[in-house]
Amino acid sequence: MPHILDEFFYPGTVALIGATDKATKPGRAILENLSHFNGAVYPVNPNHGTLLGHRCYASIAEVPEAIDLAVVALPAPLVEREVDALKAKGVRRLIVISSGFSESGEEGARMQKRIAGKIQEYGMRLIGPNALGIFNTDNGLDTFFVSRERVSRPVAGRLSIVSQSGAITVILMEALSRDGIGIAKAVNYGNRLDVDDADCLDYLACDPRTGAVAMYMESVADGKKFLQAAKNFTAEKPLVVWKAGKFETGASAVASHTATLAGRYGLYRAAIRQSGAVEAFGFDHLVDAAKAVAIMDYPCLGNRLLIVTNGGGMAVAAADQASLEGFAMPRVPGDVRERLKQAFPPYFVLNNPIDITGSGKDEDFYAALKEALPHYDAAVVIVLMGATTVTESVTALIARACREAEKPVTCCMLQGLGYTREAMSVLLKLGIPVYPSPERAVRALATLRTAACREAKVE
Amino acid sequence: MPHILDEFFYPGTVALIGATDKATKPGRAILENLSHFNGAVYPVNPNHGTLLGHRCYASIAEVPEAIDLAVVALPAPLVEREVDALKAKGVRRLIVISSGFSESGEEGARMQKRIAGKIQEYGMRLIGPNALGIFNTDNGLDTFFVSRERVSRPVAGRLSIVSQSGAITVILMEALSRDGIGIAKAVNYGNRLDVDDADCLDYLACDPRTGAVAMYMESVADGKKFLQAAKNFTAEKPLVVWKAGKFETGASAVASHTATLAGRYGLYRAAIRQSGAVEAFGFDHLVDAAKAVAIMDYPCLGNRLLIVTNGGGMAVAAADQASLEGFAMPRVPGDVRERLKQAFPPYFVLNNPIDITGSGKDEDFYAALKEALPHYDAAVVIVLMGATTVTESVTALIARACREAEKPVTCCMLQGLGYTREAMSVLLKLGIPVYPSPERAVRALATLRTAACREAKVE
Repeated sequence: MPHILDEFFYPGTVALIGATDKATKPGRAILENLSHFNGAVYPVNPNHGTLLGHRCYASIAEVPEAIDLAVVALPAPLVEREVDALKAKGVRRLIVISSGFSESGEEGARMQKRIAGKIQEYGMRLIGPNALGIFNTDNGLDTFFVSRERVSRPVAGRLSIVSQSGAITVILMEALSRDGIGIAKAVNYGNRLDVDDADCLDYLACDPRTGAVAMYMESVADGKKFLQAAKNFTAEKPLVVWKAGKFETGASAVASHTATLAGRYGLYRAAIRQSGAVEAFGFDHLVDAAKAVAIMDYPCLGNRLLIVTNGGGMAVAAADQASLEGFAMPRVPGDVRERLKQAFPPYFVLNNPIDITGSGKDEDFYAALKEALPHYDAAVVIVLMGATTVTESVTALIARACREAEKPVTCCMLQGLGYTREAMSVLLKLGIPVYPSPERAVRALATLRTAACREAKVE
Repeated sequence: MPHILDEFFYPGTVALIGATDKATKPGRAILENLSHFNGAVYPVNPNHGTLLGHRCYASIAEVPEAIDLAVVALPAPLVEREVDALKAKGVRRLIVISSGFSESGEEGARMQKRIAGKIQEYGMRLIGPNALGIFNTDNGLDTFFVSRERVSRPVAGRLSIVSQSGAITVILMEALSRDGIGIAKAVNYGNRLDVDDADCLDYLACDPRTGAVAMYMESVADGKKFLQAAKNFTAEKPLVVWKAGKFETGASAVASHTATLAGRYGLYRAAIRQSGAVEAFGFDHLVDAAKAVAIMDYPCLGNRLLIVTNGGGMAVAAADQASLEGFAMPRVPGDVRERLKQAFPPYFVLNNPIDITGSGKDEDFYAALKEALPHYDAAVVIVLMGATTVTESVTALIARACREAEKPVTCCMLQGLGYTREAMSVLLKLGIPVYPSPERAVRALATLRTAACREAKVE
């Protein structure tokens, strides 16, 4: 039996209520984005005969087909009546884009409550209001009211996004997209009148296209339900959760953003830990962790960390972060040290970090990893691409050492001229997460360790 | 009387010992970089008659002019004898680039010690060894052995860099350069055989081109001397310090990097705080804080923070960070709220954060800041450039509100397509530091607050 949310993500027919050609209205961007959907799209607007090449219908009643999913982009006061019209048409799945509900004051809250009553009474399911809805690379469904000229869309991939905030959904998608990280599905549920965080996780746990989830939340609808859904999810796939609205000021910002109570952060923290999810502590952390779980093939099964670099100062920074993340950095074993001593000039530093200095070559990175990595659980490799002895070929050699040792490696590449950017994108394609600071590379590796602990934990 | 380091930064004549045309040798990159220096350059190498168009001298003795500064790029074992030759020539300032001294083991440490003895005996001053030396935008002096094809150089500006690590000097310069932040001077002192952290700070305190300093240190030569130098410096100009090698693993990485002891982090922390400097906790933080003190005109003289955004989720993240940084976020005063209510659509959220939502326009950012900012000490503005209602003009409007209120504003701009990158660079030119995440924008503002406290502190 398909999951209850299946028709949201894989409808055959979609109606867009409030379709328009006015450039500043959400209904315009959504209509354009729905042109990428591989099913049938029916724009509804009484003032237009055609819209962007589609035939336009005066009301949902006039649409000649059965509609699996209605996307409602009307002003808030018109939504309630539309729910009745959709009921009459037999539509059972609604995404309500419109804002102006409980996030905007008492009148909006009253409207939202009335709609919630109807949804339940009519046996409908609803995502939103005050939400972007769904983006699905598998069938091109894209209900986001953000134009593709302004915000690029990611390619298909194994990471899915679940977010309470529309802005963060889009920004996360774009940040990952910029690094070539693909997305399976993204869902922004906004005010969470009906479909909630736990429902989305449950659905994605069963989704064969989803290999990991990055989640942004300000609150949960039901703590117990969320914890169970997160536990079920992490038993199968890695989950990264950023809980925002942690402190008083942030929490009061939440109240006016998605009209929910942020709740006590300590409880969220405990629940995230207990569920086996990785907690991300802010935006950059969420992006970094999502990148790691999205592309890394090897889990980090212990805490013995090796650092290899051609720039000593950056290794010091990485070692500091390693301490904060609970990694141990045992010295390079004596025999490995001896073998490397034979191969390397005398001024290479063969402790841990291994510092092949500004004179180190591509092959020296490989030699150091080849000899030493089997004695550790994971490595962070920091490459200063400004060194004249380092070329783009270093990427393939690092990836090869990672593959041969079957150990996870994250990278930091610094000095950002064009060819470094290029090398970073090659590394990502080779399955090595790469970051713009040593601290972030270490923190991402710690994410993989937490995600791996999950595996050890499952009964 | 000129400062004792003046001849290092403003020599009339420079000799490069170990000049070469071999692409992989430091002496090649330095010779190329010295072509930008506005004084006379004398390459020394017994195996060449000319080098890259310069006449080349077989030894320092043969150079026909008096030499103010010698840059020594010889293999470590040859440096000691060269010091004698330089003494004979009457050279009193040396930058020793060569590595292979105390950072690489006992033999190197013995060589370094012997050189230290001679330097003192001869009344010379020495920067290095194991160092890049000096970059000075004022006269084009550039002793860095990093080619300009690999690492771009910043334009002239008011920020100077003092760093124990060569790699971090270069990476920091480049990171700032990418954002159009100019540099006055940069000095990397490496193994610190003679000239140390405190000497450099003392010099830059008197340097009229330097408006602020970003500093990377793994250790200090002399705690008391550093504290005094830092106090003197912060009495005049903002100082940001990143102390790395904080914890055991990082500290042992320091030992093999610059051959110094990292010391107890708690003591460093206390000294940085006591000196009135801003502590940066890692690489990104150093870059962010340096950017803020380099370009911001208004100090942050209190902790009452206003947040304005068109994307609620990001304001929640900013508010969380504001709590961590000790900012208060009082609500928008009632009369301001009333006036804004008249001007704005009903669904704009007029708490603090002020959320003008995805429908907010450029002018709405200005109106919100214009009305509310005078009631706060500072603001963070988070702009999602993906909104169809926002244009590049938002930059000038934010800068104008900041100027009119004479209050510091940092920005976060998200969604990274080309035109956003463009808008970010315009904002920086208008004197508004802009960051890629809301947390970083808040943290940078906190930096300005610490730097401002310094002013209040001076007797």
